[in-house]
Amino acid sequence: MDQSDFLISRLGEATLDSPLQSTQFVDDDATVTYHTDTRTLAEYVREGREIPAFELAGPRRKLYHDPAWTKAAILTAGGLCPGLNDVIKSLTQTLRTSYGVPLVYGVRYGYRGLNPASGLSPLLLTEDNVDDIHEQGGTILGSSRGAEDPAVMVDTLARMNINLLFCIGGDGTARGARDIAAEAARRGLSISVIAVPKTIDNDIAYIDKSFGFETAVYMAGMFASGAHNEARGAYNGIGLVKVMGRDSGFIAATATLANSYVNYCLVPEAPFTLEGDGPRALLPHLVDRIQRKHHAVIMVAEGAGQEFFASEAEQRRDASGNILHEDIGLLLKERIATYFKARGIEVNIKYSDLAYTIRSVAARGTDAVFCAMLAQNAVHAAMAGRTAMVIGHWNGHFTHVPIALATSMRKKIDLSSQLWTSVKASTCF
Amino acid sequence: MDQSDFLISRLGEATLDSPLQSTQFVDDDATVTYHTDTRTLAEYVREGREIPAFELAGPRRKLYHDPAWTKAAILTAGGLCPGLNDVIKSLTQTLRTSYGVPLVYGVRYGYRGLNPASGLSPLLLTEDNVDDIHEQGGTILGSSRGAEDPAVMVDTLARMNINLLFCIGGDGTARGARDIAAEAARRGLSISVIAVPKTIDNDIAYIDKSFGFETAVYMAGMFASGAHNEARGAYNGIGLVKVMGRDSGFIAATATLANSYVNYCLVPEAPFTLEGDGPRALLPHLVDRIQRKHHAVIMVAEGAGQEFFASEAEQRRDASGNILHEDIGLLLKERIATYFKARGIEVNIKYSDLAYTIRSVAARGTDAVFCAMLAQNAVHAAMAGRTAMVIGHWNGHFTHVPIALATSMRKKIDLSSQLWTSVKASTCF
Amino acid sequence: MDQSDFLISRLGEATLDSPLQSTQFVDDDATVTYHTDTRTLAEYVREGREIPAFELAGPRRKLYHDPAWTKAAILTAGGLCPGLNDVIKSLTQTLRTSYGVPLVYGVRYGYRGLNPASGLSPLLLTEDNVDDIHEQGGTILGSSRGAEDPAVMVDTLARMNINLLFCIGGDGTARGARDIAAEAARRGLSISVIAVPKTIDNDIAYIDKSFGFETAVYMAGMFASGAHNEARGAYNGIGLVKVMGRDSGFIAATATLANSYVNYCLVPEAPFTLEGDGPRALLPHLVDRIQRKHHAVIMVAEGAGQEFFASEAEQRRDASGNILHEDIGLLLKERIATYFKARGIEVNIKYSDLAYTIRSVAARGTDAVFCAMLAQNAVHAAMAGRTAMVIGHWNGHFTHVPIALATSMRKKIDLSSQLWTSVKASTCF
Amino acid sequence: MDQSDFLISRLGEATLDSPLQSTQFVDDDATVTYHTDTRTLAEYVREGREIPAFELAGPRRKLYHDPAWTKAAILTAGGLCPGLNDVIKSLTQTLRTSYGVPLVYGVRYGYRGLNPASGLSPLLLTEDNVDDIHEQGGTILGSSRGAEDPAVMVDTLARMNINLLFCIGGDGTARGARDIAAEAARRGLSISVIAVPKTIDNDIAYIDKSFGFETAVYMAGMFASGAHNEARGAYNGIGLVKVMGRDSGFIAATATLANSYVNYCLVPEAPFTLEGDGPRALLPHLVDRIQRKHHAVIMVAEGAGQEFFASEAEQRRDASGNILHEDIGLLLKERIATYFKARGIEVNIKYSDLAYTIRSVAARGTDAVFCAMLAQNAVHAAMAGRTAMVIGHWNGHFTHVPIALATSMRKKIDLSSQLWTSVKASTCF
Repeated sequence: MDQSDFLISRLGEATLDSPLQSTQFVDDDATVTYHTDTRTLAEYVREGREIPAFELAGPRRKLYHDPAWTKAAILTAGGLCPGLNDVIKSLTQTLRTSYGVPLVYGVRYGYRGLNPASGLSPLLLTEDNVDDIHEQGGTILGSSRGAEDPAVMVDTLARMNINLLFCIGGDGTARGARDIAAEAARRGLSISVIAVPKTIDNDIAYIDKSFGFETAVYMAGMFASGAHNEARGAYNGIGLVKVMGRDSGFIAATATLANSYVNYCLVPEAPFTLEGDGPRALLPHLVDRIQRKHHAVIMVAEGAGQEFFASEAEQRRDASGNILHEDIGLLLKERIATYFKARGIEVNIKYSDLAYTIRSVAARGTDAVFCAMLAQNAVHAAMAGRTAMVIGHWNGHFTHVPIALATSMRKKIDLSSQLWTSVKASTCF
Repeated sequence: MDQSDFLISRLGEATLDSPLQSTQFVDDDATVTYHTDTRTLAEYVREGREIPAFELAGPRRKLYHDPAWTKAAILTAGGLCPGLNDVIKSLTQTLRTSYGVPLVYGVRYGYRGLNPASGLSPLLLTEDNVDDIHEQGGTILGSSRGAEDPAVMVDTLARMNINLLFCIGGDGTARGARDIAAEAARRGLSISVIAVPKTIDNDIAYIDKSFGFETAVYMAGMFASGAHNEARGAYNGIGLVKVMGRDSGFIAATATLANSYVNYCLVPEAPFTLEGDGPRALLPHLVDRIQRKHHAVIMVAEGAGQEFFASEAEQRRDASGNILHEDIGLLLKERIATYFKARGIEVNIKYSDLAYTIRSVAARGTDAVFCAMLAQNAVHAAMAGRTAMVIGHWNGHFTHVPIALATSMRKKIDLSSQLWTSVKASTCF
Repeated sequence: MDQSDFLISRLGEATLDSPLQSTQFVDDDATVTYHTDTRTLAEYVREGREIPAFELAGPRRKLYHDPAWTKAAILTAGGLCPGLNDVIKSLTQTLRTSYGVPLVYGVRYGYRGLNPASGLSPLLLTEDNVDDIHEQGGTILGSSRGAEDPAVMVDTLARMNINLLFCIGGDGTARGARDIAAEAARRGLSISVIAVPKTIDNDIAYIDKSFGFETAVYMAGMFASGAHNEARGAYNGIGLVKVMGRDSGFIAATATLANSYVNYCLVPEAPFTLEGDGPRALLPHLVDRIQRKHHAVIMVAEGAGQEFFASEAEQRRDASGNILHEDIGLLLKERIATYFKARGIEVNIKYSDLAYTIRSVAARGTDAVFCAMLAQNAVHAAMAGRTAMVIGHWNGHFTHVPIALATSMRKKIDLSSQLWTSVKASTCF
Repeated sequence: MDQSDFLISRLGEATLDSPLQSTQFVDDDATVTYHTDTRTLAEYVREGREIPAFELAGPRRKLYHDPAWTKAAILTAGGLCPGLNDVIKSLTQTLRTSYGVPLVYGVRYGYRGLNPASGLSPLLLTEDNVDDIHEQGGTILGSSRGAEDPAVMVDTLARMNINLLFCIGGDGTARGARDIAAEAARRGLSISVIAVPKTIDNDIAYIDKSFGFETAVYMAGMFASGAHNEARGAYNGIGLVKVMGRDSGFIAATATLANSYVNYCLVPEAPFTLEGDGPRALLPHLVDRIQRKHHAVIMVAEGAGQEFFASEAEQRRDASGNILHEDIGLLLKERIATYFKARGIEVNIKYSDLAYTIRSVAARGTDAVFCAMLAQNAVHAAMAGRTAMVIGHWNGHFTHVPIALATSMRKKIDLSSQLWTSVKASTCF
């Protein structure tokens, strides 16, 4: 880990006075250290190496872009997540009300809306038409998966004179933003491209918390109670619930802690087998529990157990390049039924597929506030001329993270962390 | 329709004074007419026929069973429904607190718990251990499907000296209750067998409202908003939600009215085809809408479109004799994808299976009050010596309904009713 | 009770064909009998008197008003109630989409908006601008209390050529509607004036259920749990919650049944004293309970205990003529504190004033459906030329009720009914 | 700020092996730096001063207390807060299941339960009797305000052989815990006294997030929508909502951001006057807004505007020594009414007192998880022999904070922070 990995690209020197008032401006060299353990910090000092630290987010005294001449565009890409509309609303309000940016466009259906071939026209966003949108889930702009040619997209941005572009989305979206920033730089265009990280799975590296996660956990935990009721309501009842979590199981694990009725929490990070005699052989373990307790609740992340399907070579990918997962929920439902039947043990399985149900609601309470603050900081960064970065959150502070760093790997559950240890303690598997 | 169909069986003359105080006793000949149109009533009068009417439910001045010597048993059978625990709680409280019945047993897992071969012991229910149960969904007694031999069950009741049996369940459960009542009568045992009708689908004949329905509609309507967000969030997005509704689509239809985002409401009563060129051909209609509007929300009752699966002869049945339905949700998801792909039209389908999710929650507000009142009236009927009946609700009043009448047919959506006409007006199909 | 009290005014003969399709038309002489007990009906027949019955609501084959020439106006008056926007939306949709009425106006702030002196312009309502309003509580039209001169209001209606007027409100609003209908009749104007009864308190006579009540009960019951937690959380804790209920305590009583944590349910209908030694002396009873149980939950309707305030002569009235109630919640809080202090008994009182909180939310689930159906039937009645009536609900059916009958008295809790007997059984006072 | 302020008291050397398995043990010298800005850290290094840092919380390899001989006690003191039962449950489970501590007592009604004169017996807590308590708000142990004599309390602890004491509460509770720890130390008793900080107001210094806050904000934001509906529903309508916030307005400010309908957010930190002509004169500002917009929503923290009441000398204090606040909500309601009346301007004020309503609910989702983790870390600290400390959270990590530091001051809203700047931007005052 090197401090150079944390450097943020700037379009040029920021020389214009910020119009913001009675606000706490953030110095351009303010930071949030990556480490907070004194021993590690002392080591860097001892070795004469620079302490790795993120640039601290927040309003700058000096701007690069002149608000009066600024045209901004916002797009949402990838799957839904609670809070998308909060981010759109707050970006629009901060740009227009706080900075006085006259024109804010909403690009339809992700990057596709930047390709003229799509025939999609942008929306003009105003304080007025975004006023109530935070009360509904989804995204008023529409979203899509898949990349477009950066050259084509930069053509569009150049033609429309867009100098701020906000891309709300996941890994793929951030990489698209990076490509646009690179293409713009190649052409000498002064476009700030800022990604707002969207991952309901909370799996973006170097970012400790992502918007929508809090709301998704609340929903998933609530539904686990229903699965518990189904499991208890029938003799040898099994309540099986599938939630989001393609590559990491943070939602399933956190919801398991929020709702202590879950007995089996299955996530991509903690391998298990269906049969066999190891401690992580699900079906024999389940037979044992059912015969003792007569009920069980299983929460499974959609990405768990993908190795039970076809070989890697045969895996299908979606338009964003993500591996298309087979339905582990349906597989478990069938395999459990077959396994118990073969052993002559009655079982009553109730399966609910809630993956979409927990992601299509509106963000609530502090989650909504987090969305608003992410968006404000994204605008501050853009106006100050930062580019090719995502707005992050680390050690309790909002940060600037280079896209290259944020997309260098995916965050996964550490099986020896307090989170997973707690899950182990509160479940039986 | 004949008044004789409405007659309620009585174990014998009720001669004991009720211990209830400051209550409005109901006369034994108080009724609720089946018809409320003056013209129909006049016709009966003109023809000299007795006006068909239900016995009015409520506390009687005279009891048949002596509370001090009474032993009651309660069981729940069939699938979950919001409010089961409210009914169990209110039965227990009314028996013990209002009437002073000393012993109330909770039979485990439906009729199975009355068969000694199951090895299941009953629970002793008290005001204390039922005090909080209304706050959780499901049933604290457990439930099961399937019949047991009436002779075996009456043996158990006789051995335990049970003289009141409350069976909370659907059609199959009511028929089981009728068989127990008949067997008890054959042996000369004075057992009041009262069914409390449970049908989340609201499909029991001669009963205008069933417990849990209100809560189920609320949940289903809430989830339709999420499907709408998914549909709007993707280009050519389709949000597909499956809810309960095996033989009748009251939940889907009512939730559609409660949430005006549903565009297609598919229920068992309103036939449709997948392909073809009729006005009820789903896939062509959907293609047309998607091309014009670019999104659609479909709510499908689990029992809709069952004719798209195997022939009648091959249909499987569950332990209660209900036809086991194939998953119409999964079928629609696949057929829509294939149909659009074949026509080269992009489509983004998001499917949520919420059948169990809407039935496993606790009953709320007025729905919980309805549960409590049903249960109170069930106890009043039992103590007065009624048997082989279900507690119903008609024209705004609680009623006594002979089991034979209640199970003679299933209530279905009338396609020319205000309900369905309103659904048609608020959807596009 | 005489059948003549149930007669509905008609503007004239309905001669135009209804444009509604595939609907179940209701005959003009279809009825819903007021009584449903065969014995009472038989008495009427025996005495040769006409059986009293409401006109059944629903779409008619023949219309009085020609949709193409129709201009409708909608107003909301009195306090908020869940579902107001659902009714506005459904009136607008039924008028425009089902009947093809071209112009629907929304009058601002109740009757005030019909007085040109107010300077308030009406809104033009379309399917489009009412599409989402059911998701928010309150009323998009605004409301107000107080009467306006019928002559002035009819001048406005005549000038604007309004021939359908829908007045959503309570007793005072219905009387205003009746005066407008009378004034219009005097001038020979063909204006159908239909009241949609709004009473969160569920206290309109001859109407068994009013919109918003279901939602209000759900909210009030939910809050009672919080009061219970406060009461249990402190030594000698008392949780005191005030809810709506000016002249009748249906919300408090029903919420008490929905949430069994309430120990004292205080309503206007059931008198009690603060001190003294009778069984209904609140403070001594409370001291006794607190000393035995160390906690208590009190739910009080705002209209309870008004006799503890000034004499009748001094009572203040609001602009609608309703007696302005003093705050019984604050009075109880102070009197309890003083009474316990005088006796040297520690007490911890937590008071929450939730009167407005339970009425300002959106209607949900079946309550929203009830709103929609009330509104549809109001339009059917208006188009058929009915006037000076309110849309009611009786014995499970929607009905037409003359305004004179509906406002002849207020519905109150019958202290010997199942509702109140159940409240008594589940509380301690 | 000096590193010595961060030192945690230890009862002695930890020499016993921890029974925890497959967990990530935390080194005894692991830290979380107070600062995260590289520039500040560099300054400490340059000056040769130790970098101030909290001890990192988490499980230790070596324990001080022998689980087999350990007896723990838990108490809750002060006002209710969402999550109290989650903390009690997680303390009990971690002690018993993870560490094998045989006896865990629940002390009734705070410190009072440690005074034998109260006659209150403790409850024995087991995994079984705490299993479901997280689903209800409040505290199963009961709470109280006010101090007891440390000598008396330590007598009780010594007599019962308690060697771990967990005190869940606010400032006053933490000071009580410190006094007990000091008294125990004076007597040479090895009692670990750990405070779990409870402050719904989120106002404890050196702790960036407190449990229950997230849930309280969600509730407060939800209610603001109702106030908005009331305000819009009447001509010149004002919706006034009072929430918790005695000395700091974090709930009001955060809820204002979560719900953009609030126009005036009144908190203790941001002074305002009622009349006058300054920019912070509430009533003239309100008159101006009402005349332009005809509605306004005010959210007021209970501690705002206390200077409008009696002089400091006359202020009353509660049993914990907190200043007893007069009801700013009622005062505002009356002053607004008078002010508008004097100016002949109609106004319709609807006041809801929700202070208790938002604190008596159960914690939800990630808030519940936060409670569980706080409790686990409290147990880890206690077993390792730490004492006189509170479990904190800083820069995203759980920390050990000396009670003296945590109670040295109260956290307040910084009026130039992003939080308050955002509130200013989203409101009008």
